[in-house]
Amino acid sequence: MTYFTDFDKVQFEGKSSKNPFSFKHYNPSEVVFGKTMEEHLRFAVAYWHTFNANGTDPFGAGTMVRSWDKFDGLDRSKARVEANFEFMEKLNIPFYCFHDVDIAPEGATLQESFKNLDVIVAMLKDYQKSTGKKLLWNTANNFTNPRYVHGAATAANIDSYAYAAAQVKKGLEIGKELGAQNYVFWGGREGYESLINTDMKLEQDNLARFYQMAIDYANEIGFDAQFLIEPKPKEPTSHQYDFDAATTISFLQKYGLADKFKLNLEANHATLAGHTFEHEIRVAAINGMLGSLDANQGNMLLGWDTDEFPTDLYATTLTMYEVLKAGGLGRGGVNFDAKVRRSSFEMDDLALAHIAGMDSYAWGLKAAAKLIEEKVFDSVIEDKYATFNEGLGADVVAGKATLKDLEAYALTNPVPRNKSGRIENLRLRLSEVIFSV
Amino acid sequence: MTYFTDFDKVQFEGKSSKNPFSFKHYNPSEVVFGKTMEEHLRFAVAYWHTFNANGTDPFGAGTMVRSWDKFDGLDRSKARVEANFEFMEKLNIPFYCFHDVDIAPEGATLQESFKNLDVIVAMLKDYQKSTGKKLLWNTANNFTNPRYVHGAATAANIDSYAYAAAQVKKGLEIGKELGAQNYVFWGGREGYESLINTDMKLEQDNLARFYQMAIDYANEIGFDAQFLIEPKPKEPTSHQYDFDAATTISFLQKYGLADKFKLNLEANHATLAGHTFEHEIRVAAINGMLGSLDANQGNMLLGWDTDEFPTDLYATTLTMYEVLKAGGLGRGGVNFDAKVRRSSFEMDDLALAHIAGMDSYAWGLKAAAKLIEEKVFDSVIEDKYATFNEGLGADVVAGKATLKDLEAYALTNPVPRNKSGRIENLRLRLSEVIFSV
Amino acid sequence: MTYFTDFDKVQFEGKSSKNPFSFKHYNPSEVVFGKTMEEHLRFAVAYWHTFNANGTDPFGAGTMVRSWDKFDGLDRSKARVEANFEFMEKLNIPFYCFHDVDIAPEGATLQESFKNLDVIVAMLKDYQKSTGKKLLWNTANNFTNPRYVHGAATAANIDSYAYAAAQVKKGLEIGKELGAQNYVFWGGREGYESLINTDMKLEQDNLARFYQMAIDYANEIGFDAQFLIEPKPKEPTSHQYDFDAATTISFLQKYGLADKFKLNLEANHATLAGHTFEHEIRVAAINGMLGSLDANQGNMLLGWDTDEFPTDLYATTLTMYEVLKAGGLGRGGVNFDAKVRRSSFEMDDLALAHIAGMDSYAWGLKAAAKLIEEKVFDSVIEDKYATFNEGLGADVVAGKATLKDLEAYALTNPVPRNKSGRIENLRLRLSEVIFSV
Amino acid sequence: MTYFTDFDKVQFEGKSSKNPFSFKHYNPSEVVFGKTMEEHLRFAVAYWHTFNANGTDPFGAGTMVRSWDKFDGLDRSKARVEANFEFMEKLNIPFYCFHDVDIAPEGATLQESFKNLDVIVAMLKDYQKSTGKKLLWNTANNFTNPRYVHGAATAANIDSYAYAAAQVKKGLEIGKELGAQNYVFWGGREGYESLINTDMKLEQDNLARFYQMAIDYANEIGFDAQFLIEPKPKEPTSHQYDFDAATTISFLQKYGLADKFKLNLEANHATLAGHTFEHEIRVAAINGMLGSLDANQGNMLLGWDTDEFPTDLYATTLTMYEVLKAGGLGRGGVNFDAKVRRSSFEMDDLALAHIAGMDSYAWGLKAAAKLIEEKVFDSVIEDKYATFNEGLGADVVAGKATLKDLEAYALTNPVPRNKSGRIENLRLRLSEVIFSV
Repeated sequence: MTYFTDFDKVQFEGKSSKNPFSFKHYNPSEVVFGKTMEEHLRFAVAYWHTFNANGTDPFGAGTMVRSWDKFDGLDRSKARVEANFEFMEKLNIPFYCFHDVDIAPEGATLQESFKNLDVIVAMLKDYQKSTGKKLLWNTANNFTNPRYVHGAATAANIDSYAYAAAQVKKGLEIGKELGAQNYVFWGGREGYESLINTDMKLEQDNLARFYQMAIDYANEIGFDAQFLIEPKPKEPTSHQYDFDAATTISFLQKYGLADKFKLNLEANHATLAGHTFEHEIRVAAINGMLGSLDANQGNMLLGWDTDEFPTDLYATTLTMYEVLKAGGLGRGGVNFDAKVRRSSFEMDDLALAHIAGMDSYAWGLKAAAKLIEEKVFDSVIEDKYATFNEGLGADVVAGKATLKDLEAYALTNPVPRNKSGRIENLRLRLSEVIFSV
Repeated sequence: MTYFTDFDKVQFEGKSSKNPFSFKHYNPSEVVFGKTMEEHLRFAVAYWHTFNANGTDPFGAGTMVRSWDKFDGLDRSKARVEANFEFMEKLNIPFYCFHDVDIAPEGATLQESFKNLDVIVAMLKDYQKSTGKKLLWNTANNFTNPRYVHGAATAANIDSYAYAAAQVKKGLEIGKELGAQNYVFWGGREGYESLINTDMKLEQDNLARFYQMAIDYANEIGFDAQFLIEPKPKEPTSHQYDFDAATTISFLQKYGLADKFKLNLEANHATLAGHTFEHEIRVAAINGMLGSLDANQGNMLLGWDTDEFPTDLYATTLTMYEVLKAGGLGRGGVNFDAKVRRSSFEMDDLALAHIAGMDSYAWGLKAAAKLIEEKVFDSVIEDKYATFNEGLGADVVAGKATLKDLEAYALTNPVPRNKSGRIENLRLRLSEVIFSV
Repeated sequence: MTYFTDFDKVQFEGKSSKNPFSFKHYNPSEVVFGKTMEEHLRFAVAYWHTFNANGTDPFGAGTMVRSWDKFDGLDRSKARVEANFEFMEKLNIPFYCFHDVDIAPEGATLQESFKNLDVIVAMLKDYQKSTGKKLLWNTANNFTNPRYVHGAATAANIDSYAYAAAQVKKGLEIGKELGAQNYVFWGGREGYESLINTDMKLEQDNLARFYQMAIDYANEIGFDAQFLIEPKPKEPTSHQYDFDAATTISFLQKYGLADKFKLNLEANHATLAGHTFEHEIRVAAINGMLGSLDANQGNMLLGWDTDEFPTDLYATTLTMYEVLKAGGLGRGGVNFDAKVRRSSFEMDDLALAHIAGMDSYAWGLKAAAKLIEEKVFDSVIEDKYATFNEGLGADVVAGKATLKDLEAYALTNPVPRNKSGRIENLRLRLSEVIFSV
Repeated sequence: MTYFTDFDKVQFEGKSSKNPFSFKHYNPSEVVFGKTMEEHLRFAVAYWHTFNANGTDPFGAGTMVRSWDKFDGLDRSKARVEANFEFMEKLNIPFYCFHDVDIAPEGATLQESFKNLDVIVAMLKDYQKSTGKKLLWNTANNFTNPRYVHGAATAANIDSYAYAAAQVKKGLEIGKELGAQNYVFWGGREGYESLINTDMKLEQDNLARFYQMAIDYANEIGFDAQFLIEPKPKEPTSHQYDFDAATTISFLQKYGLADKFKLNLEANHATLAGHTFEHEIRVAAINGMLGSLDANQGNMLLGWDTDEFPTDLYATTLTMYEVLKAGGLGRGGVNFDAKVRRSSFEMDDLALAHIAGMDSYAWGLKAAAKLIEEKVFDSVIEDKYATFNEGLGADVVAGKATLKDLEAYALTNPVPRNKSGRIENLRLRLSEVIFSV
């Protein structure tokens, strides 16, 4: 059966195409900066936004028209699997990602939930084999169910904590079964509403123990995925423990977990934390923690996670610039943790939105490569920091200088060799480079 | 000579006093929670806001009427020293804090600047001896001078870096000379305006080297102050490296400096970073990094550092609650990094504002003590996390549980023992407790 | 049948009471500033938050335990009516407010929806008669249904526009039937997601026509309620047309509707728009537009509408200060547009939360009255603006001065008689007054 | 004498030019959408940012290297005049704008200040005549001087109010003398720090009287410039009365001034108020109040006015789209109320930054014209609202429908003809158009 009837396989047709169901920039086999676009970008469909979401918001009911909604229960879950692989095929997307509750209905008991999962996982495995599509990552939804009202891995009681652990254990088994390249933790309820009734230390200690148990079990079953933590500063909690990249790194370092995890960074989470996406990627990169990306964009005038499809070329260019500079995404990828707007409720909006995101990222990749190849930023940077390549500057970098050495130098009262940062000119150059690719 | 002619020594007169130049809550010798108020609070005057600021803002010239402004140059600096000790005496404030440039004019050369500092430091030392007042901390202003346009300890060139180092070296010597209890680093320019022309890794590596050199030199000269870093997320830079407590901790951990530093936390910096002040203190406390406080408050509708005197009793109460829970401030204190509003331009506003801050903190201290003694929050917390004291919960806490154990438990499908967080009721209780002290 | 079994009628027991199910400040018959508390405050229960909400948030399912949830469909609606009047009785709340969809289920057709409403409205009318409780206001929910995806009174098509009009027509009839004191419009979808696909002018023109038709119909049926518009800047839309008080006033002025409407102001909407609640009330008051209040509070670190019960005494005091200064709320009231936190899921949290809100508002009322009676702020204000009471200042106020007069005066180069704003001292005084009533 | 020695007259060289001191998009004589670029854009230099600013920020001293700083007092003012006209000539900018204090030093008395102004105004007039350059607008700086600590046209005392009036009177005379096309009011101190010590009603009444007096005097002297008010929500005050376009309009309507003023809108002020720049322009346009633009951009992660040169092509395109749709800027223009970054301290950064802004606006103009000509957005909009062109929809628009008519229609239960908003696809199209011109 076909779920997407309004468009055929979307092909690269180049910039001059007038066909909205074509790629104008994403050309999977085109080589950019030494690798094909497909190898660089490793696009993934987010199962939840694409196949589960219905357009609900806090003030409105669902608006989405979906061909699989004629089915119910496990049948609907199966229809979604079929739709997922059809969609990946038609959009030429190699990866997908899911939470446990996205793919199969929760049962009345944990046993029943597991049984439902087993049915669907077997089906996914078959489809993966027959289509060549892969699982970028899976995760457990430990935030929607009311049992997680006070947290999951930071739950206030052992019952909820244990339930979350059971979900993660199953998730690791599923990940192994499906050959997931990564396993993700997003702590939607791992935080607090108010400090006055929260034991932050106990909660964070328990969170660290939870992670350690997960690693131990993955080792035990031979599941060798890359483990990722996804920071977010708030929402639904008032404060989420994995606030941003730096906070998550401080947590991992404290508990001796820094070599076991990398980060799954999201653009809209970055801006909610007061950072650019580039910032979060740079922080992760220089700490050796860049794992994977949740590619979306927020609305800077709104204070919640809007998870829009990424279409701002400045953002996609600077994102891919950081990724290329960091040596690429490795086992990670570019997952569209993005939802079509509530007002984009037609089936073909799903395709148009993914095309918009993929073309914008491909465009950004090309522009980023050109920025590096033409040393647009690097030439300014090399010049700016040149005095650290020689003399006392080099001594500082080599760790051989002391305050006394530096004072002795300063007492000669040198005129500081500061140079203009040229930021206005660089920004115009950035526009020009984006334009020119 | 007298600088403050409009009021005499401010005394504790109790709640019923109608005298605006009296303390209604701050009673230094009153014992609260096992120590005198003076021992708990360790108030400090911020030299810069109190004796240097003139009410300038980005759109306006100075408005302040100050009796020391009839002097010039070094004479004005000397007058400020006299005014400082008169003010501390009249307000009964035991500590003060300063940047190098607050106390003495910068000279045409570094040598001249040092000479000016030496004159004033000698004078400060004499005054400290004769009055018993103490230096809570000193620091170097490595952000105002144009030479720091691209940073100081993260400067883009060795000339600025060396100059900053020389200032810090001198600052350590001054701290030793004056018996400073702490030495502070606030990295006002240690950050970036834009990532596109910034080498974040080099800058952070250099920052870590800078800190290490400072520690080495302090050891060399036998200056045993507590070293503090003061986080701030932005302003003047677009992004400051010491964004918040967690970010600063991650930096210190990465470079092996975590046991050499504690944090000097500021209320308004916390809110600019998207946190409550309580949050920052809690994070520092559970990481063993609580050093000292910059006590002020911001305006939550404004996006810049307003450094207002703290008068919100909810905030001062919850701040002191965290401090008491953490075991107190140790060698740190409560420094009023707060400035009178541009429209509060009279000399006696300085006194009224400090009284407002001191009474609000004393009031908060008393309320915090009562919250703890009556277990207002603790009784809810103990109840909430009770299941971690026994059985499988206790095993988790002891690090003896595995995912398998937890799954086995969850498969028995226990009903999670979540309890209402009672936050609305707790908030009313908080008001009642503040009221009742 | 009884729905609230855990507490009896909540009585005023005074500050010393230890009973959480008592009022410590709200004493309905106590006279403050010339009227009883009940007359000043005119508290109202928000039907939707109290009887319909289940604790859902964008990342979580409902958590609330509700005794009426054992019923279904129209039976559940009837149970909610009973629960509403029981709750009002037990909490001593004289008013309630609702949207059409809160009280009765939507049917498959508009006719069916109307029929359901008729059943419940008859029941409400009986209960009002037997209990003496009153309807503060009703409104139509023109935002939840997917038909309003592009707006209701600003819909992109006539079908949705007409449907919204029909709901409002029915709402006016219901309001008349139940003797509603006010009728409210909150334009949850009257705004836009993006300007690029929006005809703002047509939408606003249509909105004005919609309001005019509503007024015409109310006149036709003799429904003489006060009409209110409730501003909100955003959420669910990216931009809501009734952004804040001033924007709504500019709209009403433009379309000649300013004498037909007043404003229903909400605290959390104010802060989302970048204002204090006091500001919005003051703006409404000096424009003769103060109608009614939605009393809640937000979390200043979060960018969405949290609708928390109001417990910040600074806020409730300053709110009631503005209300008293404006001459009271007239036909309006204090409606708790507040929801218990998702983690406060027990039935008795509904009572505790309302008690917290009512006591906090009663406390604020008493403090506000004292601020006025003791001229705490007024004495500063009178002094500050004194020069406008005489001479040239009085001429300006009388509209008799010209630029030439003013220049002639200025050329005498008078020293401006600015006085310190004393804000730090005033803030301490505010704390003292709040915590002394 | 020459002030800008590092570059010659900047010429249009087209996109392929590698010369940083050339225009790649701004071709003054190129016809776009029926007019030349020069006629559309009417660029203006902001005197204060370009010739007065020195790079000071709240935490740092000036960094700028300026060739006119070798002069002092009135001589420096004269040098700035020369530099201004040299700069306009070299950058091919037809207009400039200033505050009184930008062009001449304040004297010890008002008389002296006026004398200084007279000297410079005569010089400006000569230069205008000899170069053909024009004054887009002038204004009075009624916010920097300490006398305006409590406001100017909303001052707390008649002395400051009169002084402000005298400055405005002189400003109107200067405007007339120099043939200014507009006269601007920006109320930097017309607002409040706290409501508790503010009489908002008196202040706003006085502000309205002030405006009326200014209009009367302009009429008296025959100065026929367009009067503009520039909204800003806050900074330096906590709340500025002219918060945004809608608020300013509500004020003007209330006091019967709406036909005497238009708006001078600024991009960065828009975002500080929680709006896009497009929004503010649209609001002004549909109210007939679009006057002129202050073209800059802010940093969405910072909460203060950064006044950066505009380089975001999405923003410039959507801005010019609104302008073209509104029928152009009339007597207004595009004034660069933008300052080079503190780190862009070289003289030639002034040129590079203006080039960046001018090219970005010219680029945006071309893209906007193409969006309109190709009906990229309009085709979606026409389709979306089509049902208002016929039948009941047309009746609504014609003001002929009633609630009863609409209910009768709704009772036929039509399926609402909502269409997908296609926002993701439209955004991709926007990128394609911008990067295709």
